[in-house]
Formats: sequence, structure tokens, C-alpha cells
Amino acid sequence: MRDIQPAGNSQLRLTIQRRLDHLTKPAGSLGRLEELALQYGLARGSAELKLARKAMFIFCADHGVAAEGVSAYPSAVTAQMARNFVRGGAAINVLCRQCGIDPRIVDVGVNTDFEPDLPILARKIGRGTQNFLKGPAMSEAQALASVEAGILLAREAAGQGYDILGAGEMGIGNTTAATAMLACFSGRDAGQLTGRGTGITDAQLARKAEVVRQSLALHRPDPGDPMQVLAAVGGFEIGAIAGLIFGAAAAKVPVAVDGFIASVGALAACRRQPSVLPYLFFSHLSAERGHAAALELMGARPLLALELRLGEGTGAALAISLIESAARLFTEMATFESAGVSQQIRSDPAASGATGKTA
Amino acid sequence: MRDIQPAGNSQLRLTIQRRLDHLTKPAGSLGRLEELALQYGLARGSAELKLARKAMFIFCADHGVAAEGVSAYPSAVTAQMARNFVRGGAAINVLCRQCGIDPRIVDVGVNTDFEPDLPILARKIGRGTQNFLKGPAMSEAQALASVEAGILLAREAAGQGYDILGAGEMGIGNTTAATAMLACFSGRDAGQLTGRGTGITDAQLARKAEVVRQSLALHRPDPGDPMQVLAAVGGFEIGAIAGLIFGAAAAKVPVAVDGFIASVGALAACRRQPSVLPYLFFSHLSAERGHAAALELMGARPLLALELRLGEGTGAALAISLIESAARLFTEMATFESAGVSQQIRSDPAASGATGKTA
Repeated sequence: MRDIQPAGNSQLRLTIQRRLDHLTKPAGSLGRLEELALQYGLARGSAELKLARKAMFIFCADHGVAAEGVSAYPSAVTAQMARNFVRGGAAINVLCRQCGIDPRIVDVGVNTDFEPDLPILARKIGRGTQNFLKGPAMSEAQALASVEAGILLAREAAGQGYDILGAGEMGIGNTTAATAMLACFSGRDAGQLTGRGTGITDAQLARKAEVVRQSLALHRPDPGDPMQVLAAVGGFEIGAIAGLIFGAAAAKVPVAVDGFIASVGALAACRRQPSVLPYLFFSHLSAERGHAAALELMGARPLLALELRLGEGTGAALAISLIESAARLFTEMATFESAGVSQQIRSDPAASGATGKTA
Repeated sequence: MRDIQPAGNSQLRLTIQRRLDHLTKPAGSLGRLEELALQYGLARGSAELKLARKAMFIFCADHGVAAEGVSAYPSAVTAQMARNFVRGGAAINVLCRQCGIDPRIVDVGVNTDFEPDLPILARKIGRGTQNFLKGPAMSEAQALASVEAGILLAREAAGQGYDILGAGEMGIGNTTAATAMLACFSGRDAGQLTGRGTGITDAQLARKAEVVRQSLALHRPDPGDPMQVLAAVGGFEIGAIAGLIFGAAAAKVPVAVDGFIASVGALAACRRQPSVLPYLFFSHLSAERGHAAALELMGARPLLALELRLGEGTGAALAISLIESAARLFTEMATFESAGVSQQIRSDPAASGATGKTA
């Protein structure tokens, strides 16, 4: 496990670990749920673990690069799906209802004018990015604005008492943008990272990789400057996700990072400010090809592997439910003392430590 | 994916698959959640997917073989934990509360007399098994009785309208029994299958494997006769789990199988009656060493891999929550038509099929 200890809380770590070890179960036997409880408590800076208020941010934006035929769906689907989110008919709505998560639909760049009375948070940076095969996806000012939009939303949510935020997205063409950013950050060839997104054909897949390759050759963004990478080949929702992470980490509110696109947003955030990493929960390993590489660059181990490749925040919603399980177990379980259950006959930490590795 | 099609329902399969493909998401993009919806519907024999009533059976029993020092805890912990279940302080209670599952605590062989007014279902076959290093764990009549107890409980639950059952357990010493049964069924040496259970030392681990080896050499049960294997080296809770599966499958009620011990119960059931397999959901891959081998013998692919090794039904509760997610997505999501969302530009089933394999 990577070290997730924010500075100066070794006492909190001890407090949480001691309670975990006194709950009525063999030490460590709740596996990754125990890690989740520890990471969550450290991130919140408290041994009172609760997930009373949960929000899922679904950042929606269009992509000029969609004109290159890199998606199986027309760009109009971004706005159509945003309306579907409003009506509660999308996958993320169903999972949010099941898990008690409040969905927040954010327009950071959809190529349409939504009626102002719709429950969509209007944070539009532009009506979609430019086609980055031809020029930069966005200006530096727009890149900054997209990140700021995320920061402000996180700050607002923290002020409203949200305990955890999910980072999801919707945007036809955005696996192409995320792949281009990842290829730049990783230095790997587009061919190894480009996946089928919403379900494209072999010919489209080859075209998509070529678009990524040519775009990076055109812009040559500096991998050490995430804002430059975002402006060159990114997307408004990816910038907003990075911003959400900055804002949430500053307020000690953890973020459940959804799939491939959200993970690239997280990677951009981590490249800029590595100290946000302990606040991130990586929800799942997507079936989208580049996702494993993105996670690897952050040393992240996803919680779930259900072959999801939908986005929206669907994997993050399921992960939030698991983090809530971890917090509830930590809070509600009896201890050996309180339940009058006998403890281990032998207390041998070495053997106990080895146990977790028998799988 | 293994073929999970019960006989004579190819029309139902088509109906379910057609709706899955019309929901507002790229075809197949919900990955294993779509498989879960399909398997669940086929098992229930209906395209109306709901998990309104959910029960978790926690079968508790003691094991004579615990006298051989194969566990890190004293046998008294079985009864103590059963009381903890009653008071709601165990891990499984917490997860059942979160997921809306009714816990059913069943005494099939605890070495104590519970007060009759406790909410424990009294189905005691004996006060624990005999030490199978010395003689058979139980008589053939007891083996049969343990299976019958499970069958009757499943039948009762089906009559009460339960949509899904979880199979969990508690019993100090039961990883030794499950390992012995698995070694017999698989023909593999105990050394490859024996794990640390509740967290034993290296010396205890070697002793545990030796106990398994010697016991099988003593009894030589026929791997083709699961009841004989159960009687020789099994446990009352393992028999009850096999019975629960028989009863549930007969009533078209799926069962979420928890970890190592429950999976060995499922393996015994499948060896006796392979047609129960489509009714089983394998919840997670436990950190207990033999679990992967048990799953492999059934061609089962676990849903979660969270390094749990607690039992009780904890992994099954989390899996039931995922199955409920799948059912809710199936039922509540809008279709492309109803939501006015454009469908894929190209309808290329071959490409769509390939997409699921890009991970």
C-alpha cells in the first residue's frame, strides 16, 4: 500500500488502527475495507467516520475533436444525456438513488443552451473545446477557468457539509482528449493507450490513435506542465475534475475518482500538486484500454474491477458505497471487550501481518 | 462467461438482453453489472428484476477438530459471536443494515445451549462435530439432517417472498473442515490449499495441513459422493449451506455465496447437483488460500476482490448490493427511445462485441 499519511497525524493513524484491531473480527480480516476506513479517517482528519452527505459531480462538456469521427455517438448526445441526468433516467441517477448520493449535473462546456430553470449548474467555459487536431483545445484562460470552476464547486460542497464527493463526467469525444493527455504525461505511444470508448470499430480505433499522435506532434505540450497539457489536448470537464480535487483536498473532503477520464483529471491534479493523492479513492479498473496505465502512474490500486466503461460516475458511486461500508463497520461494530468475545489465543503480529498476503 | 442458461428460457434471455441493449448507455458498457442482471433474471425466470426482500443466513456450528489447535481462537468464540450477531454488533450486522438485508442467525451445531427466547433459529444437529482426525466428523444421518435444515430454510424463505438469499457462516475450526473437503474434491495436496483462517502462525499452519492430510488418509471419502465427504471431514454449517442452495435453486431463488467455507458448501452442492450452478452468485475472492481453487473447480468468477477473510456473509452482503444495483439499473434506466437520446452512429455488433475485451 502506498503511504497515504498526510503530515502530522500519526496519532490519528494510531487511534484508528487501534479501534480497527479491537473490532470483533480477526485482525485485518476486513482487508481493503480496513484500508478504506484508515485512509478516509486520515483524509478527513478525524476518527469519527461518517458519510452522511455524499455528492456526485457529473461534469458535462463537448469536444471539437469529435468531428474527427473518434466516437460511436454524435456530439448531440452530450446534451441529450445531460437532460437524461436531469430527468433521472441515466445509470448514474439509478446508482445515486440506491446509494443516497446527491447528483450535481454541471455544464462546463456543452454545445447547447440549456433552459435556465433546469437543475443544471451553469459553469460553461465555452460551447465545447476546439478540435485539437487543428489547434489548441482551449485557451490558457479557459483551462484555468475550468479548474477554478471545479475548485469553487468543491469549496461550496465542503461548506454545505458534504463528506465525500464523486468525480464523474459526460462528453462525447472525451476518451480521445483523456488519451492524448495520458500519452503526453506517460510518454507512451497512443497505440498502447487508445481504447474503444463508447464502442468504435477497428478502423475508428486506428484513426483515433492517429489523431492523438498527430495532435501531440502539433502542440508538443510540456508533460511537466499539466495546465499546458490540458489547454492543448484536454477538455473542460477534465479541468473541472482536477479543480474539484484541488478544492476538495484543501477542505479535507475525499474524492472518489470514477473511470478513465476522471483518472486522467486526477493525474493532472497529482502532477501539479502531489499532496492531493491521499484524498483520492480510485473506484474501479475500467475496460477502457488506457485506464490501467493512468492508475499505474499514480500508484493507485482500484477497488472494483467490474468491466465498466460507461463513465458518468457510475464506478465512483459504487466505490462510495464501499467507503460507506468501511466507515459504518468502523463506527458500528462491537469491540471484543464490549461484546464479550474472546481474543486470539496467540497474539503474533508477524503471523497476522503475513495473513493478508495468502491470497 | 460460463453458460448460465437454465433450460427452456431462450426467449427470456432475448427479452432481457434486448432491454439491456436499449438502455441509455453504450452496449455492454455496464460490464459485469449487465451479466448480473441477465443471470438474475434467468434464475428468477422473469424479466421483472427486483430485490425487494433479501435474507442473509449465518449458519453457526462448532468443530471437534478445533481441539487440534488449528485456529487462532478458542471454540467458545462461535457461541460468543452468535450472541454478537443477535445484538447487531458484528460486521455482517452492519452490512445487512446498510444493504437492507434481513439477517437470519441459525444454530446448526453450536456447542452451547442458547436461551430459547433469543432470535436464533434452532436447527441444532449436534453440539459441534467430532474431531475428524480421530473419527468421522458426523454420522451419515447428521450429514443428511444438516443438508435438510438448509433446504427447509430456503423453502421457507422462498415462501415468505425473499428474492435472494446470502449464504454465510461462523464456526471456529471451519476453514480446516472446508480445506479437507476441498482437498478431497480437488485431489490436491493440503499444503497447496491450507490457509491461515483467522490468523494462525507458521507452525499452526503446518499442523493444520497435516491434520487435513492425515484425516483424509484415515477416512478416504469418495470425492464423487459429497455426502460422504461432508460426513467424514465436513461441518454442520457446510452441509446447511449446500442444503440452502438445493432449496433455493428449486424455488428459483438465487444465492449469493460468501467466501471460502460457503464456496466449499456450494462446491459440494454442485458436485451432487450441477444444475444449481446458474442460481449461484460468487461474491468475492477471499484472502484465504484455498478459495481460488474452490472457485476454479466451479468455473466461477468472483465479483469482488477486497482481500476479505472474515466470513459471516460479509462478502455476500456486498455482492447482494451489487446485484441489486444491476437489477435497479435494468428496471429504472431510460431507453434511448424514451429519453430521446441518439443511438450509435454505426451499429456494428462485431465491434461492439470486441469492445468488452479491450481491458
